[in-house]
Amino acid sequence: MQNSHPNHPPGAFQLLAQDGAARRGRLFTAHGAVETPIFMPVGTVGSVKAVAPDDLHALGAEIILGNTYHLYLRPGDELVARRGGLHGFTAWNKPFLTDSGGFQAFSLSCLRKISEQGVEFRSHLDGSKHLFTPEKVVQIQRNLNSDIMMVLDECVPYGTPRDYTEKSIKMTTSWALRSLSARSEFPKDTAVNLMFAITQGGFFKDLRRASVEELSRHDFDGFAIGGLSVGEPKDEMYELLEHTAPLLPAGKPRYLMGVGTPRDIVTGIGWGVDMFDCVLPTRNARNGTLYTSLGKLNIKRREYAEDDRPLDPACHCYTCRAFSRAYLRHLFAAREILSFRLNSLHNLTYFLDLARRARAAIEAGTFAELKREIEYLYPEG
Amino acid sequence: MQNSHPNHPPGAFQLLAQDGAARRGRLFTAHGAVETPIFMPVGTVGSVKAVAPDDLHALGAEIILGNTYHLYLRPGDELVARRGGLHGFTAWNKPFLTDSGGFQAFSLSCLRKISEQGVEFRSHLDGSKHLFTPEKVVQIQRNLNSDIMMVLDECVPYGTPRDYTEKSIKMTTSWALRSLSARSEFPKDTAVNLMFAITQGGFFKDLRRASVEELSRHDFDGFAIGGLSVGEPKDEMYELLEHTAPLLPAGKPRYLMGVGTPRDIVTGIGWGVDMFDCVLPTRNARNGTLYTSLGKLNIKRREYAEDDRPLDPACHCYTCRAFSRAYLRHLFAAREILSFRLNSLHNLTYFLDLARRARAAIEAGTFAELKREIEYLYPEG
Repeated sequence: MQNSHPNHPPGAFQLLAQDGAARRGRLFTAHGAVETPIFMPVGTVGSVKAVAPDDLHALGAEIILGNTYHLYLRPGDELVARRGGLHGFTAWNKPFLTDSGGFQAFSLSCLRKISEQGVEFRSHLDGSKHLFTPEKVVQIQRNLNSDIMMVLDECVPYGTPRDYTEKSIKMTTSWALRSLSARSEFPKDTAVNLMFAITQGGFFKDLRRASVEELSRHDFDGFAIGGLSVGEPKDEMYELLEHTAPLLPAGKPRYLMGVGTPRDIVTGIGWGVDMFDCVLPTRNARNGTLYTSLGKLNIKRREYAEDDRPLDPACHCYTCRAFSRAYLRHLFAAREILSFRLNSLHNLTYFLDLARRARAAIEAGTFAELKREIEYLYPEG
Repeated sequence: MQNSHPNHPPGAFQLLAQDGAARRGRLFTAHGAVETPIFMPVGTVGSVKAVAPDDLHALGAEIILGNTYHLYLRPGDELVARRGGLHGFTAWNKPFLTDSGGFQAFSLSCLRKISEQGVEFRSHLDGSKHLFTPEKVVQIQRNLNSDIMMVLDECVPYGTPRDYTEKSIKMTTSWALRSLSARSEFPKDTAVNLMFAITQGGFFKDLRRASVEELSRHDFDGFAIGGLSVGEPKDEMYELLEHTAPLLPAGKPRYLMGVGTPRDIVTGIGWGVDMFDCVLPTRNARNGTLYTSLGKLNIKRREYAEDDRPLDPACHCYTCRAFSRAYLRHLFAAREILSFRLNSLHNLTYFLDLARRARAAIEAGTFAELKREIEYLYPEG
């Protein structure tokens, strides 16, 4: 599927329709086009947990996310490079986006030291010491042959003071430029790895604006909003999102990192965001929390023990076509491995369908209705 | 699929070919015919671990085994009955065989008391007290709507003295007759649940013969060899098997319970056994031990880290078609849930293919060659 769109080089982004601030687009990558708005399932260590590539194709997944931190530690990016990158290694032949690994280096590692040079951290697996510099992180993602690489950034926690946040966005910008420069050294004929910058700025609107203004002067293929959904109250997140999304360059894809719930996603789309990723559908699947056209459902509950209806009567996934709530509850209660897969297939279908419905609604000019429906079904997000 | 063969009522058994003592047959059940020799994947608690019904169809599974003990405790056989039995509950629409639950009541329960009445035991889940009588166990399997029910029996451990074994087979026979009588009370038009007796006799050839002679006087639909593969040396098991299998009625299916390795299976087939079940392919899959056309392979091993070949070049399963040993090793090392499924798909394919190859070899009169090949590939069993 390499370069399946000869007229559209990787990185080309078409805006196909607009409905208010919501955008319907198409992003070209070396492994095919991605229709936006899109939800990206998370394949942390090179597999979307409990789900195989043939499942993902059946669900209509278009792009999945790989975690640079995890893949760097195990099996190692050089080993992956020798297998033909992530596509060759995992047998997923559609686009991959990889994060920068910075977030995991901060959150999973007990010892970490941030300096202008980069992030020093200890592996959560064996305690070994490692250094992520912007250049190193680009090289790792290049080894993974990621279709969309993210630059190393610092994601500051909720409540970080203004002066630290101010210094932090300066460093994040300087790291982003070092990343661009590292990519420019790739041989031209194989340079098909897009690069997105990550805007930061904590919970200060003027710093958010400053971060976007500095980064958008440079030739990135897309722009992400980082540092949201880090523990802040929902209304504060939505306020920042409303403020920030419209500042991002209109001609490039916009990506809201690590977000979120169905309500977060329609809120983001409503303010012009194009791409989302989150572990929520797969992690919640393993906890028995399922997303349906009737709202959230906890399959653990006693009331489903003798419920012969499908999990979601409106859903077309294998789980909903073949099994009853009673059986799904039993599998969950018995801690059967099959429970993880069937629940994950369903939740991913829900999130991918939500993106599909958003695309159709934007084309039809009815996005506001879809947004209201989701807000009604998921009042708490 | 109820009664898909109107000319062959459930229980009819055809012998289609013979090669030495090895038999090629066909057993009719209420949910379709089963081609023998056959390997039955084990679906302990109502799912073959990590594998869905659509996977099982793709692998060519013809019949699966459910554990009466587990299903009785959770979700409960009456709940399953209200869902349309195991077929309705699990969405597996081909035949089910269910064991009697006796083996698990003996092996999983800390407190158990065996008397002529039955087996009293405590649940391994919550310590609650239960009594399995022969009649109760038939009723449970009837609630599960099992295609092939097994009678309650006592499986004596390796090393049990002669006098205990002698008394035990008397009780097992009396339990079997009580089971037949319990089944005779089912309404005739719905009595499609076959019933197999289980011959015992420990490691005493004359007691094995006595058990078979007593049980084979009665109208069971098939006969099992129980109490093998319980810790004895391999050659002793094979000697007992060689002694016992030919004693079983020739016109009925013969089932070797809980066995075994590829070598055990071809050995059993060679002595005229028709049916096998074992957790080995699925349990070993989860431990990383994989069965291939080149012998056993432990996917954990460092030597596979950069091995881009398929797991088994001769295999047609999804795992072998889509992935490399390097990726499978990575999934196993990272303890990804997908590893369990992909390994299980492969191992089940190996065991089901072995049965398929045995059937073809018996038809062609070349079974001895297949047996030699497996003995060479799996010298230790």
